[in-house]
Amino acid sequence: MVTIVREAREMSSLLTQRRRRGQTIGLVPTMGYLHEGHLSLVRSSRMENDVSVVSLFVNPLQFGPGEDLSRYPRNEARDRELLDGEGVDFLFAPAAETLYAPDHSTFVDEAALSLPLCGASRPGHFRGVCTVVLKLFNIVGPDRAYFGMKDYQQLQVIRRMVRDLSVPVTIRGCPLVREPDGLALSSRNTYLSPQERTSALALSSALEATARAYADGERSVPALLEGLRGRLTRDPLLQIDYAEIRDAESLEALDVVEAPAVVALAVRVGKTRLIDNAVIGG
Amino acid sequence: MVTIVREAREMSSLLTQRRRRGQTIGLVPTMGYLHEGHLSLVRSSRMENDVSVVSLFVNPLQFGPGEDLSRYPRNEARDRELLDGEGVDFLFAPAAETLYAPDHSTFVDEAALSLPLCGASRPGHFRGVCTVVLKLFNIVGPDRAYFGMKDYQQLQVIRRMVRDLSVPVTIRGCPLVREPDGLALSSRNTYLSPQERTSALALSSALEATARAYADGERSVPALLEGLRGRLTRDPLLQIDYAEIRDAESLEALDVVEAPAVVALAVRVGKTRLIDNAVIGG
Repeated sequence: MVTIVREAREMSSLLTQRRRRGQTIGLVPTMGYLHEGHLSLVRSSRMENDVSVVSLFVNPLQFGPGEDLSRYPRNEARDRELLDGEGVDFLFAPAAETLYAPDHSTFVDEAALSLPLCGASRPGHFRGVCTVVLKLFNIVGPDRAYFGMKDYQQLQVIRRMVRDLSVPVTIRGCPLVREPDGLALSSRNTYLSPQERTSALALSSALEATARAYADGERSVPALLEGLRGRLTRDPLLQIDYAEIRDAESLEALDVVEAPAVVALAVRVGKTRLIDNAVIGG
Repeated sequence: MVTIVREAREMSSLLTQRRRRGQTIGLVPTMGYLHEGHLSLVRSSRMENDVSVVSLFVNPLQFGPGEDLSRYPRNEARDRELLDGEGVDFLFAPAAETLYAPDHSTFVDEAALSLPLCGASRPGHFRGVCTVVLKLFNIVGPDRAYFGMKDYQQLQVIRRMVRDLSVPVTIRGCPLVREPDGLALSSRNTYLSPQERTSALALSSALEATARAYADGERSVPALLEGLRGRLTRDPLLQIDYAEIRDAESLEALDVVEAPAVVALAVRVGKTRLIDNAVIGG
């Protein structure tokens, strides 16, 4: 049975005991409403560590005004059952009031990788992500932490933060998990109407077509992007937030794909903003 | 004999071994050129911990353009002898190139306590302090870290950072140490000419006079400040950077002293900027 912990202090002290016994700790930070993508991270943590902790926290700091904080899907009872089934040791599910003091005033800013893509369309988002992830690292003290490649930019920003701040944790990036028809798993897929669900398939199919064009020899970023964007502008239900091809590690803009690059998409499907990506040239 | 360590990785692994043996770790972060103020921190660390680490790092990130980074006084051989004499276990003295990657891009910002006083006259200073102190905490993993009350605002900013980011360390603030004639010990005192050294006594004597006025019943901040500033404007060698009275914990501006307050000074003595402070109403 997974043990639910609500208080940071209690979480730390439980894990300090385990660490003193020489046990290693894996952390899977989540916002809950778990799907197979999260569970694949959990399984990696279970494989590599003596103790696995899943955090469940819908972090207000990473939502902008007008974003979906209040309606973000939640189902802790179901999350708990899923984690029981996976043999997770601890579910750390603090209340926002316990994690942030009313006069909280310290923030972690990554000032390079977090600027383009989601950083440009969601100001303050990565500051919120970095701040809460560093807090979770400090509370849990994990040997390894697991993040999905679905949030590709987030993974790169966190790797950079860990390097720059000398955080003693190993970051594992785990493959994106898709539905059989290609849709990338996301807690936000629950917002989609049946019609929107069908339209949303354009994201993965556009990424696939771009990967094919690359495999067929196309190296020009403008040419690849023209094809990519063309496939996302046919359906009036879709509105591109961004569609870009950038260096897979530095996230710098490219004219030509020479090394691994990430094809990164954020698209509104009706009112729901979905992201997806594929790495090419790897 | 103190063991000198240059590489963060080596420092971490040496201390991980100690921690596994159940030993507690104290950290005294310094910029070197040690004086009795630093040594009082070292002694506190030695009293409370099994292992004591002094870091020596003149952190470029906390110096602004035109500040004294390049001429900041250094004497590692002497520092090492002093630490030998105190029975310190490790001197962590990394090179700047090993601590910051050329594309370092992650910073820790405290956005309330760091705004007034030194934060106003040294933009970016506390961002540099918070970032390097958090890095040192991550590398060393101390149970306790020791800071002098000479850098009063720094101490409060670090306490806030530790609280906000859930850093698992206890912060100890240690009393300011003065020369027999009242001058607060500072590595920067070495910049002073004999004449400036005499003029610099006005800082501590102005603070003393303000504490006396408070003890005599004066509670009005404008009245206390008038007396304080008056004593610092008589000598043409002195130029006030700031002279303020603020809440001792929140550093908020005050009209009347009702709870503990800090009288905080930054004064240029010739070309040398000195800080000093006294807490009243405690």
